Amino acid sequence: MATEFVYYHVPLSQPSRTVLLLLKLTNAPHKVHILDMRKGDHKKPEFLAVNPFGKVPVLVHGDFVLTESPAIAKYIARSTKCDDHWYPADVKKAARVDEYLSYQHTTVRKASIAIAMTYVFIPRSTGKPATEEDKNAAYKGLQDTLEGFENYFLKDRPFVAGDKISIADLFALSEVILQCEMSGRDFLETRPKVKAWVDRCKEEFKPQFDLVFQPLYDFCESLK
Amino acid sequence: MATEFVYYHVPLSQPSRTVLLLLKLTNAPHKVHILDMRKGDHKKPEFLAVNPFGKVPVLVHGDFVLTESPAIAKYIARSTKCDDHWYPADVKKAARVDEYLSYQHTTVRKASIAIAMTYVFIPRSTGKPATEEDKNAAYKGLQDTLEGFENYFLKDRPFVAGDKISIADLFALSEVILQCEMSGRDFLETRPKVKAWVDRCKEEFKPQFDLVFQPLYDFCESLK
Repeated sequence: MATEFVYYHVPLSQPSRTVLLLLKLTNAPHKVHILDMRKGDHKKPEFLAVNPFGKVPVLVHGDFVLTESPAIAKYIARSTKCDDHWYPADVKKAARVDEYLSYQHTTVRKASIAIAMTYVFIPRSTGKPATEEDKNAAYKGLQDTLEGFENYFLKDRPFVAGDKISIADLFALSEVILQCEMSGRDFLETRPKVKAWVDRCKEEFKPQFDLVFQPLYDFCESLK
Repeated sequence: MATEFVYYHVPLSQPSRTVLLLLKLTNAPHKVHILDMRKGDHKKPEFLAVNPFGKVPVLVHGDFVLTESPAIAKYIARSTKCDDHWYPADVKKAARVDEYLSYQHTTVRKASIAIAMTYVFIPRSTGKPATEEDKNAAYKGLQDTLEGFENYFLKDRPFVAGDKISIADLFALSEVILQCEMSGRDFLETRPKVKAWVDRCKEEFKPQFDLVFQPLYDFCESLK
């Protein structure tokens, strides 16, 4: 019997949700430990013994401990021998997945964090609503990023790596959905290619998608 | 005959140097186009036609165009079938390489950029030397990062992925050496494990290392 994955998860972290979604979509045997960062679970000795950086997600597989969500996702895809399209054996398709997973750090992910901080977390911690100027700056950063994503990664193909969905789409979708929910703005109206891609991805991910994203939806609902 | 790689390179960019070093170490057939960013080569139509993001490095292989240095390095390793240790077929070792290449973005690479900006580029563009406070803050950020790198990635193994050198070491070394040269400080004196790793890597990379790093050394010499 294959060794079960042990997965340390924070439901409101988008990289963390992405990996959980992959575990569910590939039917990989796994057990989830949920950490509550507001209670400081990630700084407790029992978790620091697993990951000294005190960050989620973390995957434990037997005695092998792995951090960093893109690395974890690739490891799950490779070690479970799941359907090839998640992380293709084809060298060029795999390169597209790798390319997106590197690209995202300073673009899609950065813009997503800026939206969440500006629209939600800074106002909550300071008690002051964001200025229109700050909101527009974060929104502009997001639009610039989505333009790059659309023109490069979705230019001539339905998914990031080609004709089929891959872990790169999972990561991208997780950030884009977050942006959508947190900003409360329909920022996809001017991005028809991204909007069509979001719909294609969601169609592929049902019903696991709603299951994994429900805590985010609940959180955003609580902000209203 | 294998299709030659066409590589767009900026000698003073550390991700760019890293990939060039890999091309040389693996004896991959390649042709280099050097871009001078001070002359705006990266914003010229002929380069934007290759990479609309206007960023280096870029690899062209036949009609396949790839951006993002970690993706390029993995693509070279996979498509040339070079020695396995550069990007191991072993799933766990490959995961360590992937883990470092994701980890670096917000840690080693960020600290390296902060050193270069604080010690060299901001003073050059403003004409004002950095304050001791700013220099110490950048230095502290670097030390914290190197502590994490040492305690996690070099904790129980000579190289990032295990017993042998990989592309993860190439990327890490490129950043660490930059930090060293740009700051003009011997910041490895308190990090014996990192220092020993730097020496091991340099030993593995001779004489290609000096060839690729010479423009950086020349630039740093010109600052004195």
